[in-house]
Amino acid sequence: MASMAALFIKTPYDPSHSITKFPNTHLAPTFRVSVSVSVPPGRSKRRLRVSSGLIEPDGGKLVELLVDEPLKDLKKGEALSLPRISLSSIDLQWVHVLSEGWASPLRGFMRESEFLQTLHFNTLRLENGSLVNMSVPIVLAIDDSQKHRIGESTKVALFDSNNNPVAILKDIEIYKHPKEERIARTWGTTASGLPYVEEAIVNAGNWLIGGDLEVLEPIKYHDGLDRFRLSPTELREEFTRRNADAVFAFQLRNPVHNGHALLMTDTRRRLLDMGYKNPILLLHPLGGYTKADDVPLSWRMKQHEKVLEDGVLDPETTVVSIFPSPMHYAGPTEVQWHAKARINAGANFYIVGRDPAGMGHPTEKRDLYDADHGKKVLSMAPGLERLNILPFKVAAYDKTQGKMAFFDPSRPQDFVFISGTKMRALAKNKENPPDGFMCPGGWEVLVEYYDSLVPTINGKVPVAVPA
Amino acid sequence: MASMAALFIKTPYDPSHSITKFPNTHLAPTFRVSVSVSVPPGRSKRRLRVSSGLIEPDGGKLVELLVDEPLKDLKKGEALSLPRISLSSIDLQWVHVLSEGWASPLRGFMRESEFLQTLHFNTLRLENGSLVNMSVPIVLAIDDSQKHRIGESTKVALFDSNNNPVAILKDIEIYKHPKEERIARTWGTTASGLPYVEEAIVNAGNWLIGGDLEVLEPIKYHDGLDRFRLSPTELREEFTRRNADAVFAFQLRNPVHNGHALLMTDTRRRLLDMGYKNPILLLHPLGGYTKADDVPLSWRMKQHEKVLEDGVLDPETTVVSIFPSPMHYAGPTEVQWHAKARINAGANFYIVGRDPAGMGHPTEKRDLYDADHGKKVLSMAPGLERLNILPFKVAAYDKTQGKMAFFDPSRPQDFVFISGTKMRALAKNKENPPDGFMCPGGWEVLVEYYDSLVPTINGKVPVAVPA
Repeated sequence: MASMAALFIKTPYDPSHSITKFPNTHLAPTFRVSVSVSVPPGRSKRRLRVSSGLIEPDGGKLVELLVDEPLKDLKKGEALSLPRISLSSIDLQWVHVLSEGWASPLRGFMRESEFLQTLHFNTLRLENGSLVNMSVPIVLAIDDSQKHRIGESTKVALFDSNNNPVAILKDIEIYKHPKEERIARTWGTTASGLPYVEEAIVNAGNWLIGGDLEVLEPIKYHDGLDRFRLSPTELREEFTRRNADAVFAFQLRNPVHNGHALLMTDTRRRLLDMGYKNPILLLHPLGGYTKADDVPLSWRMKQHEKVLEDGVLDPETTVVSIFPSPMHYAGPTEVQWHAKARINAGANFYIVGRDPAGMGHPTEKRDLYDADHGKKVLSMAPGLERLNILPFKVAAYDKTQGKMAFFDPSRPQDFVFISGTKMRALAKNKENPPDGFMCPGGWEVLVEYYDSLVPTINGKVPVAVPA
Repeated sequence: MASMAALFIKTPYDPSHSITKFPNTHLAPTFRVSVSVSVPPGRSKRRLRVSSGLIEPDGGKLVELLVDEPLKDLKKGEALSLPRISLSSIDLQWVHVLSEGWASPLRGFMRESEFLQTLHFNTLRLENGSLVNMSVPIVLAIDDSQKHRIGESTKVALFDSNNNPVAILKDIEIYKHPKEERIARTWGTTASGLPYVEEAIVNAGNWLIGGDLEVLEPIKYHDGLDRFRLSPTELREEFTRRNADAVFAFQLRNPVHNGHALLMTDTRRRLLDMGYKNPILLLHPLGGYTKADDVPLSWRMKQHEKVLEDGVLDPETTVVSIFPSPMHYAGPTEVQWHAKARINAGANFYIVGRDPAGMGHPTEKRDLYDADHGKKVLSMAPGLERLNILPFKVAAYDKTQGKMAFFDPSRPQDFVFISGTKMRALAKNKENPPDGFMCPGGWEVLVEYYDSLVPTINGKVPVAVPA
């Protein structure tokens, strides 16, 4: 990951080491407080600029749920004495998401009132009466026997698959898990074969348990990529160090081709035209659960590295980090979550493409969502008024220029749309796409990935669908 | 309907004749304007009281979509020249609903942006940025051939089943009808057998057509009940004439038993305790489409008449009127629509019971919705902040008193819950419920109704389920 480390080394602050160097930085209560403290007196002008430069987190204060260092041993001891719930890998990803405040102002797994507001309104109401966006239920399911074991306890302990205590969930509320209704209202279908549903809901328990989290240790995956998993606090610190006056987020779960790169550089140009002096790109691949035929995170990070080495994106103005959320593939509902979480990380511009978080219908020969609904819903979503939505322009391969360019409807004959299917077939067959579609190093990673796949027992190779 | 007419005769203004006497009253642009005009100078105190006494309609102004009298012939002529869409009986009920402003600020069938906001957020955003509640899609479906016939026209004419022009829909927008997604997000299930879905969606066209309505004539049904179909404007006028300082609405689609009556009189008592001087009850049976095993509107109105004759409810403080909306049976989603529409009619208190707008799951042996979700969702719904939600207390037959009373959990052995199934079985068998469950005249109507049913070809008698 040399090039991505390089991205950071070129800046005065190296967040790839921040976790080691400043183990408590993400315990700072909020970005604004830490900035106020670190700015010397008499520099109020800069302080003002910085304070107003980054968007406020939802609810005004970034939620962070790690227990304070001095209390850690006490809390671990307490966890060992409580009724236990074993977390699946997706559950653990949600603990990660919650612990760092991506879902601010949520302070733990949803209680029923939050769950119902999410299902029906895609919002949560704050105590002051205002609404924040929250479109995807962040819930923890338990079964009858777990519920029975919890009994009258007001707290439970959450354990990972290695049987290590991860967190305490307190002031718990146990309520029915209306699976059919949850699926219908979140996905707009109940067709069988929705990846997240099959993975995390169908066989989950018939109860949900909500409460406030006390997380014992930062969540780590020990996969060589933890240093790229910056928390919202760390990202806000990085944007501040870079004097960002605008932050534009690009969510992705696929390899980056030059059409994406064009879009990102063009967005920066547009922001400069709007008068911003230093817009910073948050290139933010999703790192949680993805479906079997998506390219796995480790391969995507390798591919992103090659793309960055190629210099297509400017390291000075780009921050690469991993977004720890699992993927729902819930289209217009999920894109709101993707956008809302980036507000909490300091982004005030969000790039939205065609059919965000979409996929093929699991049982019918069509896309699950209308390709335009995502950006329409996102632009109208309550609680996201502060975020500037930047609709994706369509890029395609321009034969006259020999490179990816924004599609010009006045000369359609000059453009080639390279679909996911076509790209996949090329990579699998070790053929090359047209020059200028993707940097050669990035393409090699893709070919290498497909090469590494051994056919499954069905004789089928899982295939990825880049957008 | 002697007793209901009597209700109105006891007041200085008789709205049961208002349509004949004042054919243009509901053409007045808004209630507040018409009141300002009708109040003599020097009575500003009363005028102020009235203005502040009734809740404002959503969007600040009651929408009314009838064409002005002088333009009527012109518009009818225009309608005859436009591409035609035939309305189903449910479509016509929605034209009725829209024409009188129950769905204010909607000015016609939803365009896609309104449809998407309704599906995802149960709200509509106004131009000033604020949100009003709108939980149920009010849409008009057309098929491929109708879409083809409309071609490039920006207007269409809507015709009833007798081929009479009903309205012009202008500035139209035609967009895809995502049936599965509409059903999933509105009902929280896609199980087959949902009554409204079977009746109005499954066989409907694959396109929706939105636009602004110009309605040619007030919608009438000529079933002897039109005089009870007061518009929001007429209801507001009636509440004003009665000097209401609070209006509490009771939605029902079932026969009224003494438990309901107890609830309504108790609510009035509570409002008086809160300091209101003259709370008025809007007893507001739903008059549009209901499922086959509900008691039909005409029988329900007969039953309500008997209940009122019995003097259980005070005619001085009760207004009986018919709510023209069709029924979705969409539980927590639909109850918001029921409440929101009553705001537009001037109600600032809404009584909500157990499992409002609920029914049994069409394919599983359970209720479709959690019985408590309706009131929870309603109490949290964006856009309904101004409405006071009054949760239903549970009434049951108190054996010690020989009448319906609020259930006292300290002496459960004294209470009998008379379920819908039990009530149905009694009425079908011409048996009597315990004295005090329902007034004898009302019960006779129920028995008479079941008596009137001839077995269908399946040998089954449709049965109604009173709440």
